Amino acid sequence: MNQNELKRLVGEKSVEWVKNGMIVGLGTGSTVRYMVDALGRRIAEEDLQITGVTTSSVTAKQAESLGIPLISVDEADHIDIVIDGADEISSDFQGIKGGGAALLFEKIVAVNSTKVLWIVDESKMVDKLGAFPLPVEVIPYGSQKLFDCFAAKGLNPTFRKQENGSLLLTDSDNYIIDLHLEQIDDPHALAEYLIHQVGVVEHGLFLDMVNDVIVGKQVGPVVLHARD
Amino acid sequence: MNQNELKRLVGEKSVEWVKNGMIVGLGTGSTVRYMVDALGRRIAEEDLQITGVTTSSVTAKQAESLGIPLISVDEADHIDIVIDGADEISSDFQGIKGGGAALLFEKIVAVNSTKVLWIVDESKMVDKLGAFPLPVEVIPYGSQKLFDCFAAKGLNPTFRKQENGSLLLTDSDNYIIDLHLEQIDDPHALAEYLIHQVGVVEHGLFLDMVNDVIVGKQVGPVVLHARD
Repeated sequence: MNQNELKRLVGEKSVEWVKNGMIVGLGTGSTVRYMVDALGRRIAEEDLQITGVTTSSVTAKQAESLGIPLISVDEADHIDIVIDGADEISSDFQGIKGGGAALLFEKIVAVNSTKVLWIVDESKMVDKLGAFPLPVEVIPYGSQKLFDCFAAKGLNPTFRKQENGSLLLTDSDNYIIDLHLEQIDDPHALAEYLIHQVGVVEHGLFLDMVNDVIVGKQVGPVVLHARD
Repeated sequence: MNQNELKRLVGEKSVEWVKNGMIVGLGTGSTVRYMVDALGRRIAEEDLQITGVTTSSVTAKQAESLGIPLISVDEADHIDIVIDGADEISSDFQGIKGGGAALLFEKIVAVNSTKVLWIVDESKMVDKLGAFPLPVEVIPYGSQKLFDCFAAKGLNPTFRKQENGSLLLTDSDNYIIDLHLEQIDDPHALAEYLIHQVGVVEHGLFLDMVNDVIVGKQVGPVVLHARD
């Protein structure tokens, strides 16, 4: 199976976690796209009452096209589960997210969800985090100073750009600085450093957060339990 | 002397810290307004080469009207000094800022300045912080969840509103939640709590940051050295 087929299978598998009546956080990304399609089919076929909470304008558009009713995180009195992708998951179930530039809303929805389920193809499972560049969402004012600061600390920063070469703006009109680290030996220490920098809105380290992971392998989707 | 005269005198006193050729951070607020006026006069009278770095659209407008050349924090290769107000300063020189809703840019400029000078009238000097509501700048998405979280923790939150009753938007299009705490016994612990909440962009606790304070007293401006 190629990577897209692995993504499709875990996306379809993941909607088994959704029960009638649930409020479901919908992540962002190519694997999530398959999940949202599968969820739309289940809702139609089984006449389920499901409400979605999205993490990006992209996913919101897809969900609306499938007739999935949406509310904002602030309108939800609770979120039963969020189903989202990840860019890297380490052997101790820490994650990097933000390749799709939606890390801020993804993390806001995740911390407000009772259960966090990540769906990935097997290429995302790594021993240690860091080969995938770590996204950091920053306030535009002062962002060059932060960039210089990250560079001086050896964190190999680059500004995320759009295809046309201009700086990418997130859904909150902030910039993304990607840190090219190769290997992150102590994710918690790095997260502490980043969150204390003035102008950093959020970073892509999702630590101690995921409960279950569905990994798309050649033998089929494999469910891993990370933590209660 | 009334409060405005105290503010005017410290504003005028503070520009003595400015030397020819300096890049000067310009804060925000009613006391800073007097400082910027006095700086404009000094520049004109002494033909000084001064460049300003502003912390708000309001101060930028005032500085431009006085002919003070402005650059952004990202264009400044360094900032020699920032002169700013404060809403409360404790006896151990910790501060609350953000009454003017400019705390984010004020903090970005402060951490990039070689020297931090605060100018206040004597009513701002307190034993312990907390009588002044502590502003927290938050991402709109998820802000009601944060509000509920602060309320459950007993932090007495209110959303900052404009005069017309709609929610105030900062220069970065975020909301301000004010925490009505009466007394903050451990500012560092509170700052740590706040900075770890997803959706909090920055808070109004300016800790271990100010070098000198000029206090407007009835006997005249008094200079206090906080830390090197």
